[in-house]
Amino acid sequence: MAMQSSGQVIVNDVGPRDGLQNQPKILAPAARVRLVQALLAAGMSHVEIGAFVSPKAVPAMAGADEVLAGLAGAPQGTVFTVLIPNVRGYELATAAGARSVCMVLYGSEGMAQANVRMSREQAEFATAGILQHARADGVRVTSTIAVAFECPFDGPVAPSLVCDIAGRFLELGTDELCIADTIGAANPQQVRSLTELLVREYGQDRVSCHFHDTRAMGLANVFAALESGIRKFDASIGGLGGCPFAPGASGNVATEDVVMMLEQMGYDTGIDLDGLMRASQLAQDLTGTAPGGRSSAWLKR
Amino acid sequence: MAMQSSGQVIVNDVGPRDGLQNQPKILAPAARVRLVQALLAAGMSHVEIGAFVSPKAVPAMAGADEVLAGLAGAPQGTVFTVLIPNVRGYELATAAGARSVCMVLYGSEGMAQANVRMSREQAEFATAGILQHARADGVRVTSTIAVAFECPFDGPVAPSLVCDIAGRFLELGTDELCIADTIGAANPQQVRSLTELLVREYGQDRVSCHFHDTRAMGLANVFAALESGIRKFDASIGGLGGCPFAPGASGNVATEDVVMMLEQMGYDTGIDLDGLMRASQLAQDLTGTAPGGRSSAWLKR
Repeated sequence: MAMQSSGQVIVNDVGPRDGLQNQPKILAPAARVRLVQALLAAGMSHVEIGAFVSPKAVPAMAGADEVLAGLAGAPQGTVFTVLIPNVRGYELATAAGARSVCMVLYGSEGMAQANVRMSREQAEFATAGILQHARADGVRVTSTIAVAFECPFDGPVAPSLVCDIAGRFLELGTDELCIADTIGAANPQQVRSLTELLVREYGQDRVSCHFHDTRAMGLANVFAALESGIRKFDASIGGLGGCPFAPGASGNVATEDVVMMLEQMGYDTGIDLDGLMRASQLAQDLTGTAPGGRSSAWLKR
Repeated sequence: MAMQSSGQVIVNDVGPRDGLQNQPKILAPAARVRLVQALLAAGMSHVEIGAFVSPKAVPAMAGADEVLAGLAGAPQGTVFTVLIPNVRGYELATAAGARSVCMVLYGSEGMAQANVRMSREQAEFATAGILQHARADGVRVTSTIAVAFECPFDGPVAPSLVCDIAGRFLELGTDELCIADTIGAANPQQVRSLTELLVREYGQDRVSCHFHDTRAMGLANVFAALESGIRKFDASIGGLGGCPFAPGASGNVATEDVVMMLEQMGYDTGIDLDGLMRASQLAQDLTGTAPGGRSSAWLKR
């Protein structure tokens, strides 16, 4: 059915970071570069390509500087984001040439303590400090609120708390505020009401969403957020990833599933599904993991 | 988070019919009775328990009369539906004591020809005739419009056509009109707009939906229909099923996934998730198929 465009939606592939970080097999920087290049070949313009974290703590992310260097020839306008946990990560990332960084905030005390051994507020102060630096340096910043719906330690997170944190960081000048359902616990009604609140308070331009498909609600949550006006989503090629809190559960929503749904609903992602199938196959070949994206079987008919 | 009920939603398990019919392993009537009993033990009140079709054409459905007889002790108020393809099936079903039947209409010529070697309109006439009989007999009738969104032979189906067919059969007195995305091709925006149209025209009480999770959009489609006011859904325990047109693709939306989403959003299904996990495990044991419901990994944490 011919359909008029319902507008543009940006899909940011976080597979090379959030995906590979949760895979048992560790890929060398050159292999990660190949995966990112396959995503670019499919028309993707936003990719989270790695993290500047301790290679001892997260061996899968070692050599993020090499990945960045290997992607120097990418098309103008491509946004490569790297995750940074602290000032040291920021310094390493920017020294390696990163122009877009992602930092993590927390919707709960329990998750802040478990991840960075800080209180939720301490983590905010630390992130706010780096944000100030980044603004001065002209580096783009995404501030992600982890466990924005539910925390595995502390339970449900109040929408008003998420809204307050979002407001503070948008006020401080973060370029993007990403709402993350880190453990895949959100339902579409929750997503609808939280994203509606955020869009009403802060507009749609700087708010994005990050969903996991742990319990089959991944695309339902994307749809719910879309209906609230959200126009940027994280996703992971082949659904690469996984959730440490739900063994056997799938990880991020699969990029191919999200793009297929968006394109079929008339949104313009600029991404080619055949190209994504090739990238998904490469992810499978490199990691030895079967892709989680369920549109694959359909597309391979 | 304590939540007030958002109202009741009926989930009709079609696993013993739509699910088992698409499994390679054929189960004896006694095994099918056990599966249905496990669903009842979980609190389900609506189950499609079989089909009165030629046992030569569909060996998996042979002995539907024995299944019905084996369920004679079910709680008062339980609605056991059987699929019937024609007058002969209707006669066999009612002779076996069926009080609720499901008949199939078509959203396309191609599917009507492929399934029953009739034109779409001939299939409607045949079904209308049986409906008249059933009303006189006091037998409950669900009229399901197959390929209500897209047909694998003819492509997209016009919402106005589905709306017309629905209107005719509701006018003729069908107790329920079920909109089926038989091949799992619908996206939530389509679902939202078609179900909104149907609810506006005919109210929410007699319209239900049947979705497949072929491309990860199953629960997104359930959510979209819910938002339009639909309050009854088909689902299949463990996601039993499959789609002959998309090899390797999953089948119906899994009952446990649908129930988990509904309950988490505050709807009352009267169904117990632990009981569903036991029924899902039984389905797995009986069929030798891994359950498709993705909430299982989460619930088994």
